[in-house]
Amino acid sequence: MAVYTEVPDDEMAAFVARYGIGDLLSVKGIAEGVSNSNFLLHTTQAFFILTLYEERVDAADLPFFIGLMEHLADRGLICPQPVKTPDGQAVGRLAGRPAAIVTFLDGLSVRRPNAAHCGEVGRGLALLHQAGADFPMSRVNSLSVPDWRPLADRAGAAADTVSPGLLQRLHAEIAVHEAHWPDDLPAGVIHADLFPNNVFFLKNRLSGLIDFYFACTDAFAYDLAICLNSWCFEADNSFNLTKGQAMLAGYQSVRPLTAAEIEALPQLCRGSALRFLLTRLVDWLNVPPGALVKPHDPLEYDRKLAFHQRVADARDYGLKP
Amino acid sequence: MAVYTEVPDDEMAAFVARYGIGDLLSVKGIAEGVSNSNFLLHTTQAFFILTLYEERVDAADLPFFIGLMEHLADRGLICPQPVKTPDGQAVGRLAGRPAAIVTFLDGLSVRRPNAAHCGEVGRGLALLHQAGADFPMSRVNSLSVPDWRPLADRAGAAADTVSPGLLQRLHAEIAVHEAHWPDDLPAGVIHADLFPNNVFFLKNRLSGLIDFYFACTDAFAYDLAICLNSWCFEADNSFNLTKGQAMLAGYQSVRPLTAAEIEALPQLCRGSALRFLLTRLVDWLNVPPGALVKPHDPLEYDRKLAFHQRVADARDYGLKP
Repeated sequence: MAVYTEVPDDEMAAFVARYGIGDLLSVKGIAEGVSNSNFLLHTTQAFFILTLYEERVDAADLPFFIGLMEHLADRGLICPQPVKTPDGQAVGRLAGRPAAIVTFLDGLSVRRPNAAHCGEVGRGLALLHQAGADFPMSRVNSLSVPDWRPLADRAGAAADTVSPGLLQRLHAEIAVHEAHWPDDLPAGVIHADLFPNNVFFLKNRLSGLIDFYFACTDAFAYDLAICLNSWCFEADNSFNLTKGQAMLAGYQSVRPLTAAEIEALPQLCRGSALRFLLTRLVDWLNVPPGALVKPHDPLEYDRKLAFHQRVADARDYGLKP
Repeated sequence: MAVYTEVPDDEMAAFVARYGIGDLLSVKGIAEGVSNSNFLLHTTQAFFILTLYEERVDAADLPFFIGLMEHLADRGLICPQPVKTPDGQAVGRLAGRPAAIVTFLDGLSVRRPNAAHCGEVGRGLALLHQAGADFPMSRVNSLSVPDWRPLADRAGAAADTVSPGLLQRLHAEIAVHEAHWPDDLPAGVIHADLFPNNVFFLKNRLSGLIDFYFACTDAFAYDLAICLNSWCFEADNSFNLTKGQAMLAGYQSVRPLTAAEIEALPQLCRGSALRFLLTRLVDWLNVPPGALVKPHDPLEYDRKLAFHQRVADARDYGLKP
């Protein structure tokens, strides 16, 4: 939630001029996205979002992200549309960083989703998986099982300053997944970060999806596990079964889960909780001086992980038999 | 430059609904203003700015600020226009704070103003002083001479951790102004904070003024001194005489300065540099834990103050004889 980079006025104007989207009338830094700098632009034509990709985004991945947004929109999914220069370039450079302009999307993200929102998100996620099925590019998930041990190593002994015994718990949990991660589930393009701040609603209907900068090729059910983690827990970290039921029913109304996916769901939920616990922990322990962003509490995902460790099967998430 | 307050979705929607400005389509926290939380709203009617007034703004002053923006706009000055509910209320409460909605204003603020920008601002400031001349309300400047000693006391000995000997220099400078501050200069409504981030340009012409939340009743020439400080110095804190000339000529093209104002200008520049040095120093020494805002460097104004202390008369700012 921050604007990281200040852009000199003349550079901004010259960058926008290349896209042929009218004269620049207004630029506002906006509090959206945790990894990038975002600006709302108003031109004589329309409103747009300008994103400067900060360190976390690998410039080599941008053609995947930009191509994916175009592909999904072509198939009717509502997401930001990359704007291209007359010679067909979507990505340029601004203030020393890769940068792109996308269309402005109306919609409101909900801070406290209810079961109806969870149902909408489940359905929207399945539509995303369907729409992305024939996307020709692929991108390895760079935050999956092989990446978890290095993340735990980066946290190291400092993990225990956050919660006593945390480092040992992390190692034990990582070992479980390294030994038993399911690698033959139905897979394709997943969003991989579909938290409430990345989903827009209008009149309680899902109206759009944003922030595709973690999208990658991985198991569809892993994406669903990420959503169960980020949408269906209450503020006290208790799991809301009604919300889980709504999300799973919404998903299956478009794309029914296979038996293998259903069986794997508890482990996928554990794994995705572990992934966010690890990245949040590393961020928590490495807040740069003068940072403008408050890091997320890693222990939220430690508590969610503990819930998943006690789950017997997918019915505990609200899956109807 | 921050969004301080998170507003629950339902409270936001209910607040906006009271104003009858259409259905809410989008809310973005924006990085604008240092004292308040600002959100860009899109409704089915138009774009607006919603401001939540944080601690620094006294709710009792809001009728002055809101009334002033309406008064100035009625006289042709381009500034945000407060939106009123059908029963005539501009200020409401949201998330426990006073809040108001104003019209969205196009325009770009310049980070590195040139002499032409300075000329525009001088002229715009004089037009503001003219347009505000018959505004019936008044507000004491709460950051003027009588307030400087208490600010220095708040900084106290910690001032010397920022710059050796600073506290003693502050006391000596305050004593000069307490003894000799001119109190009979032409006065009226002043903006009192017309820094580059509060002035919009389109195609290098001044297109609007924003952020009237330091406006008060004080000497017009003091407002000009604030602008000389905030627009006419280079990044290395050297004074750019060409910019000063442009600003003073721009101002006088609308409202010629009196002999008393010209004579007082060096002291007013010293005083206004001292005012920003003091408030920045107190902010610098009191950054709250978890603050999302980087405080401004107080020593920038210590160096500007040193320049003004060496000035002989208004010609040193570029005033033509």
